[in-house]
Amino acid sequence: MDRILEVDAANLTLFAEAGAVTAKISQAAEDAGLFYPPDPGSMKISTIGGNVAENSGGLRGLKYGVTRDYVMGLEVVLASGEVLFTGNKCVKDVAGYSLRDIFIGSEGTLGIITRVLLKLVPKPAARRTLLAIYDRMEDAAETVSAIIAAKIIPCTLEFLDTLTINCVEDFAHVGLPRHAAAVLLMETDGHPAAVDHEAGIMAELARKYGATSVQVAETAEQAAALATARRSAFSALARVAPTTILEDATVPRSELAKMIRFIQDTSQKYALKIGTFGHMGDGNLHPTFLTNERNHEEMARVEQAMKEIFNHAVSLGGTITGEHGVGVAKKKFLKDALGELNVSVMRKMKAAFDPQGILNPGKIFNP
Amino acid sequence: MDRILEVDAANLTLFAEAGAVTAKISQAAEDAGLFYPPDPGSMKISTIGGNVAENSGGLRGLKYGVTRDYVMGLEVVLASGEVLFTGNKCVKDVAGYSLRDIFIGSEGTLGIITRVLLKLVPKPAARRTLLAIYDRMEDAAETVSAIIAAKIIPCTLEFLDTLTINCVEDFAHVGLPRHAAAVLLMETDGHPAAVDHEAGIMAELARKYGATSVQVAETAEQAAALATARRSAFSALARVAPTTILEDATVPRSELAKMIRFIQDTSQKYALKIGTFGHMGDGNLHPTFLTNERNHEEMARVEQAMKEIFNHAVSLGGTITGEHGVGVAKKKFLKDALGELNVSVMRKMKAAFDPQGILNPGKIFNP
Repeated sequence: MDRILEVDAANLTLFAEAGAVTAKISQAAEDAGLFYPPDPGSMKISTIGGNVAENSGGLRGLKYGVTRDYVMGLEVVLASGEVLFTGNKCVKDVAGYSLRDIFIGSEGTLGIITRVLLKLVPKPAARRTLLAIYDRMEDAAETVSAIIAAKIIPCTLEFLDTLTINCVEDFAHVGLPRHAAAVLLMETDGHPAAVDHEAGIMAELARKYGATSVQVAETAEQAAALATARRSAFSALARVAPTTILEDATVPRSELAKMIRFIQDTSQKYALKIGTFGHMGDGNLHPTFLTNERNHEEMARVEQAMKEIFNHAVSLGGTITGEHGVGVAKKKFLKDALGELNVSVMRKMKAAFDPQGILNPGKIFNP
Repeated sequence: MDRILEVDAANLTLFAEAGAVTAKISQAAEDAGLFYPPDPGSMKISTIGGNVAENSGGLRGLKYGVTRDYVMGLEVVLASGEVLFTGNKCVKDVAGYSLRDIFIGSEGTLGIITRVLLKLVPKPAARRTLLAIYDRMEDAAETVSAIIAAKIIPCTLEFLDTLTINCVEDFAHVGLPRHAAAVLLMETDGHPAAVDHEAGIMAELARKYGATSVQVAETAEQAAALATARRSAFSALARVAPTTILEDATVPRSELAKMIRFIQDTSQKYALKIGTFGHMGDGNLHPTFLTNERNHEEMARVEQAMKEIFNHAVSLGGTITGEHGVGVAKKKFLKDALGELNVSVMRKMKAAFDPQGILNPGKIFNP
């Protein structure tokens, strides 16, 4: 079930079986001169069916949105065993409820996705990559705000904190300054003239808001080298400690600096190693706990710190998970994050779609 | 309940009560240098709550999507009387099912929307408007395909057929040639350099694919004059006959020429006046029946023609409604269009959200 069944260039769609790996879908789109924007970190190993079930995000959320924004149709096996197809190649369709949107992000608890009809867009003609280095994390956050205020929506605005920078440097030796408080990897794409103009403004704003250094990639190779810093963040962190817990707290963009600061303070308070990186453009942070699951005393502190981080994200108008889903690990936070009423409505939906509780039982809620 | 409660420029959001008129929302966004893209034809009189309940479209669907793509949060009164808030200002959020997406487009049958949190985007810095005139409708459709194939996604690609052109000319005297088979109103927006470049290519492609005349607006006034032709289409058609029935058949873009031709053939077959205009970029056509509801014999032919048009749209992979919804008028077509299984799943949702059937009863399905 991993075949790409059709690329329809006239209608800008791609039809695939659920088991097709996302990177293969990206490549098939690119081979047709088109673009499938969602790029979850896992895209080399995750499947498109899984991406739809989790409503996966990625680095391009601010400009291009998430998986949901690219799903036009789904084939789904219902709890009854019946096979339902919802959606079509129409850009607009309001005939009845959007069943498609109900299955997206439902983590396999309402039906089993077997085929996916995706929307593609034209491949951007140009792309520019910039890397800015900061002595103060708040300066990076202010640069992001200033770029948005300048009416520029870059395709990526990625952040790394000091601990992540040092782990990346140990791992990939890309020449990042170890004392830096923050690195911002920025990318703009689109029409060549627009991209040149926007990259110029972004570099200027980064300097204005305190970047100690701004590099603009002149070639695709240079751009790839700059991107390595961000792309290797998780691998670099993962090799430092026996257990790596990658978290997913997300806040409105305006609250980012507060949230990052809170994570840093919490890390000190509980004497924990937390490396934070993430998607600064869309407020989606990945505080990553470097710990050891055999150390029960430390794990208790990790649990407590995590709880405080999620509570703080929610208190800032954020969410306990921006792109990783609830699954088993975050069930216990769901009611506090969403409120009792929302969870009870979700349970009614679960009961309507899966009255016997046979679909991915125990995920999102307890049975 | 018509107040705009907040425009948050840092997070690119707007929060409003459901009764706020959509044009007022657009204006509030523009006053902040931002842009709310959905522009349903009714936007001067329709409210944002209604737009969300119908998942309204508009002229900019191809590039900017529809209302669903701009809803970040909703306050909804449930059938139980409880007030639920779903969503937040986060670009990414996958904590549980997307209740927000369930209420969007549900036509008031699952809950009553009372407040809406909308996503805004930066206002495009430039816009260019073009008007192309064709002797053959198929040439207009081929121009649209060629523009997409050239990797250009214009913000509008609007089509008028001969009958609509003549009604517009009688009404607004904008100087359209009465013998023309099709008029294409095209608009591209974005970075000034990109817009100039794209407008040039679009004009070139229109000529290459048979346009007898291509006008490019040089000023905002000229652009507004060209847009008048399209904006006045419905009013121009509505004054010709005692009864105007505006329909909403939608097909994948590649099937547009076939669909328009079928509508024209059906109009001849049943000796009916049908003016067709619509959104050629997103496949959303508005065949408009000019008739008289007191003429029962003619109305029987209208009914039959409409049924054949919907069946044909569905057989081409399309839908019975692109942006107007099901309501009462299209209930009878729903099962044939979607299949029995999809409708039965929708009914289960209705039962889960509104067990007593008190929310907008009789809409979408019979009680």
